[in-house]
Amino acid sequence: MQRLGPWSREAWAALALQLLRPPRAPCAGATLLFRRVQGGLVQPPAREFAEARLKTQLESDKEKSSFVIKTPKGTRDLGPQQMIIREKILTAVISCFKRHGAKGLDTPAFELKEVLMEKYGEDSRLIYELKDQGGELLALRYDLTVPFARYLATNKIKKMKCYHIGKVWRRESPSITQGRYREFCQCDFDIAGHFDPMIPDAECLKIIYEILNALQLGDFLIKVNDRRILDGMFAVCGVPDNKFQLISASVDKLGKMSWKDVRQEMVGKIGLAPEVADCIGVYIQQHGGVSLVEQLLQDPKLSQNKQALEGLGDLKLLFEYLTLFGITEKISFDLSLARGLDYYTGVIYEAVLLQTPARQGEEPLGVGSVAAGGRYDGLVGMFDPKGRKVPCVGLSIGVERIFSIVEQRMEATEKIQVTETQVLVAAAQKNFLKERMKLIAELWDAGIKAEMLYKKNPSFLTQLHYCEETGIPLVAIIGEQELKDGVIKLRSVASREEVDIKREYIVTEIQRRMSES
Amino acid sequence: MQRLGPWSREAWAALALQLLRPPRAPCAGATLLFRRVQGGLVQPPAREFAEARLKTQLESDKEKSSFVIKTPKGTRDLGPQQMIIREKILTAVISCFKRHGAKGLDTPAFELKEVLMEKYGEDSRLIYELKDQGGELLALRYDLTVPFARYLATNKIKKMKCYHIGKVWRRESPSITQGRYREFCQCDFDIAGHFDPMIPDAECLKIIYEILNALQLGDFLIKVNDRRILDGMFAVCGVPDNKFQLISASVDKLGKMSWKDVRQEMVGKIGLAPEVADCIGVYIQQHGGVSLVEQLLQDPKLSQNKQALEGLGDLKLLFEYLTLFGITEKISFDLSLARGLDYYTGVIYEAVLLQTPARQGEEPLGVGSVAAGGRYDGLVGMFDPKGRKVPCVGLSIGVERIFSIVEQRMEATEKIQVTETQVLVAAAQKNFLKERMKLIAELWDAGIKAEMLYKKNPSFLTQLHYCEETGIPLVAIIGEQELKDGVIKLRSVASREEVDIKREYIVTEIQRRMSES
Repeated sequence: MQRLGPWSREAWAALALQLLRPPRAPCAGATLLFRRVQGGLVQPPAREFAEARLKTQLESDKEKSSFVIKTPKGTRDLGPQQMIIREKILTAVISCFKRHGAKGLDTPAFELKEVLMEKYGEDSRLIYELKDQGGELLALRYDLTVPFARYLATNKIKKMKCYHIGKVWRRESPSITQGRYREFCQCDFDIAGHFDPMIPDAECLKIIYEILNALQLGDFLIKVNDRRILDGMFAVCGVPDNKFQLISASVDKLGKMSWKDVRQEMVGKIGLAPEVADCIGVYIQQHGGVSLVEQLLQDPKLSQNKQALEGLGDLKLLFEYLTLFGITEKISFDLSLARGLDYYTGVIYEAVLLQTPARQGEEPLGVGSVAAGGRYDGLVGMFDPKGRKVPCVGLSIGVERIFSIVEQRMEATEKIQVTETQVLVAAAQKNFLKERMKLIAELWDAGIKAEMLYKKNPSFLTQLHYCEETGIPLVAIIGEQELKDGVIKLRSVASREEVDIKREYIVTEIQRRMSES
Repeated sequence: MQRLGPWSREAWAALALQLLRPPRAPCAGATLLFRRVQGGLVQPPAREFAEARLKTQLESDKEKSSFVIKTPKGTRDLGPQQMIIREKILTAVISCFKRHGAKGLDTPAFELKEVLMEKYGEDSRLIYELKDQGGELLALRYDLTVPFARYLATNKIKKMKCYHIGKVWRRESPSITQGRYREFCQCDFDIAGHFDPMIPDAECLKIIYEILNALQLGDFLIKVNDRRILDGMFAVCGVPDNKFQLISASVDKLGKMSWKDVRQEMVGKIGLAPEVADCIGVYIQQHGGVSLVEQLLQDPKLSQNKQALEGLGDLKLLFEYLTLFGITEKISFDLSLARGLDYYTGVIYEAVLLQTPARQGEEPLGVGSVAAGGRYDGLVGMFDPKGRKVPCVGLSIGVERIFSIVEQRMEATEKIQVTETQVLVAAAQKNFLKERMKLIAELWDAGIKAEMLYKKNPSFLTQLHYCEETGIPLVAIIGEQELKDGVIKLRSVASREEVDIKREYIVTEIQRRMSES
């Protein structure tokens, strides 16, 4: 007998609308339902009907081959193997954040739409908005930086060092091979407060260095630049004010595109004078260490620009601090680094893998940037009614891109054990379900990770197979003889060795073995 | 100098619309912008404008006192103290799930709208839908059970034991004191597959028992019932088929409402015959242990109903298994337990705290159910084109409600340390920034959790204060004398004891002290 119930108004309305519409495709299910309704069955069984309706829809859509049960575009499930990898990455990241004294923070998945607007420039069109269902207008968060700034402003916090891990959503064109998804996880570390220049900024770079090292992703480089140097460079080269943003985006493409193509875009598409483009070209094709900073401090044009001088002075100080931290060998001052996000005001940085690791059996992956960040001194003030600023600097680790690399490597080289189960409670003969249940409860209560098969009488072989399949190292076996002798047979799956252990010592013995392994 | 840029089409459109509209309130900012636009400034500075526009809006909205920078209704940030509590709860929950051999799973925050429709009965109206921005129609997940079933169907998985932790969203009336939010975290454990009856079901109850015990939430009770017994009872009492769902919802209110009021609702509002209501009343006011199951198996009416008999038979078996697990003292067979969700097909359960702990300084909280679940054998089949069923049973831990209790207790009794920092690197005099940076990098590289103040010359007292405030136990002090002697002064914050440690042994000494504490 089915649970029945009256239709909701919505269900009726939906049906009515469906009936008003001409049928989309010959569809037996719908016709049947239609007949039942016509036949005077005023309150059809709701659940049965719901199931039938869903199936009908599935079938009819399947005929059109448009509807499949799947995750939304650009998103994915993480199965057990992938969860192990993600856990491994997050553990490394969080342990580094905590080593640097960061406190934890979590913010909601969505924010008031007003909070997100005007923060991301052109990219705002990639924000997922929620449907207006009455009440506030909401949108899914696009990064963790804006929610962090909103958190500081809401709570009037002037000083804080914290980490913030969570999913963010962007309606981009997904590219699975490059690890680019519409839903992805970010790991942010931020330092807010009025401090002496470049000290927190240097720590952010040290953190990126430590994390990429710890994850053993292969050789990497952290590109560094400063928004003030970029703006100063555009100004001295004669870029019209209103073209700064477009040219900035163009500059950012150097590396992915040749200078010739970037120049072509600047002149042909954006309408820059050729000599202005060439002036920019001279600058942005340069990269190097602190000596390049010093050279540009003497540059006849750039040294005339106040903003550029400020940026260069700070970068010089930054390099001094990075030398003390011992990480300059991975740092490159790169004048072509521009970063898309609107809110940066000073130093910016981006870590790239120099070559994707290509061990045996690995396909090279184009993963691009794996970590990035910068200084954003104006963002918190945008949320403050009096515009009071809280200077901030931070970084974001792109878990999905790192994930693609680690996943590929682990799949190629290791067998991943997806559970931590230490012992399977098994029966040697039939009719030992009760004894298995009593024993496994004891093990659980002692904190031992234990499983049993959910059949009354699983065959002994099936139970052993299960251990081999899932990597469980021990089997605790109960049988007639064992029950009589008051023992449990403890078997090592790898060596096939079996020992009888007195019932009362079985917990201790398993704990001893597990602490040894 | 500001970064400038052309307006997007959207920005122009927004402005045009704003100009067409009469001004909402006298607003200097808007007028100014308007003048600038009128004055022929065709491409105003984008970022400056954006900031000004936001502020203008904030100010104007503030005048209307309608817009505040805050989290959306029914959601909240978790600050550092709260994150410590959530971590504590999740650690206990995950460690229990892993002890039972569960694998990890993660699914996207949103699903295709079709996936969520027709799964939650009347509650479907509480689903957050995403705005149609082109492409697929999406909705935020309402629980983790439907995404899990969709995952099984998508990947054609017939057997799996897994846990699944994540946020879910419901447009309910929030009640902060009861720990009811619109965004909340669920911790699910599920067993899918064809197994012998009640073995996985019993494990789910054991897990709820273990977790509530581990979290020390005070005395609790796990109510158990079966959808088939409910349906059978409604049938034998003569409830019309189409009223099953309404009556079921009514039954679920017993406990929050008196039987008199529930009866009034059944008769007055739903239109049940008084004798039918009284028949139900006799049943649902009963609760007890296995003896009640046995008594109902002999019940002249109920024993005539096939479904009820099946449910009662299974419950009898369940009690047998729960006895083996040693947890029957916390289990109550309660005929008034109905559970709202549509997809349950067999055993259902719900854990409630018997009294909220009221230690000194604690306000009693009405948190209600803290864990719940049941058997849902039909859900996966709803996603399968051929309707192939995968029987499932699972449970869900309600983190937010547990959180309210643990938070209150911890606030009342403990000082929560929000960072794990082990040592502050401090300077005794001015001009030791470089030495501090060199030392702290060494400590970080050795895995020691270390902080320093981000000022060039912080006062010694400020540095000591910081340790006391944040609970950092050790200070590594560098000064003129120490530098000369090649030592670091290591100070215990609690005892104020100071010892000079040779520079080359400082890492080892800190590690030694930390491993002792």
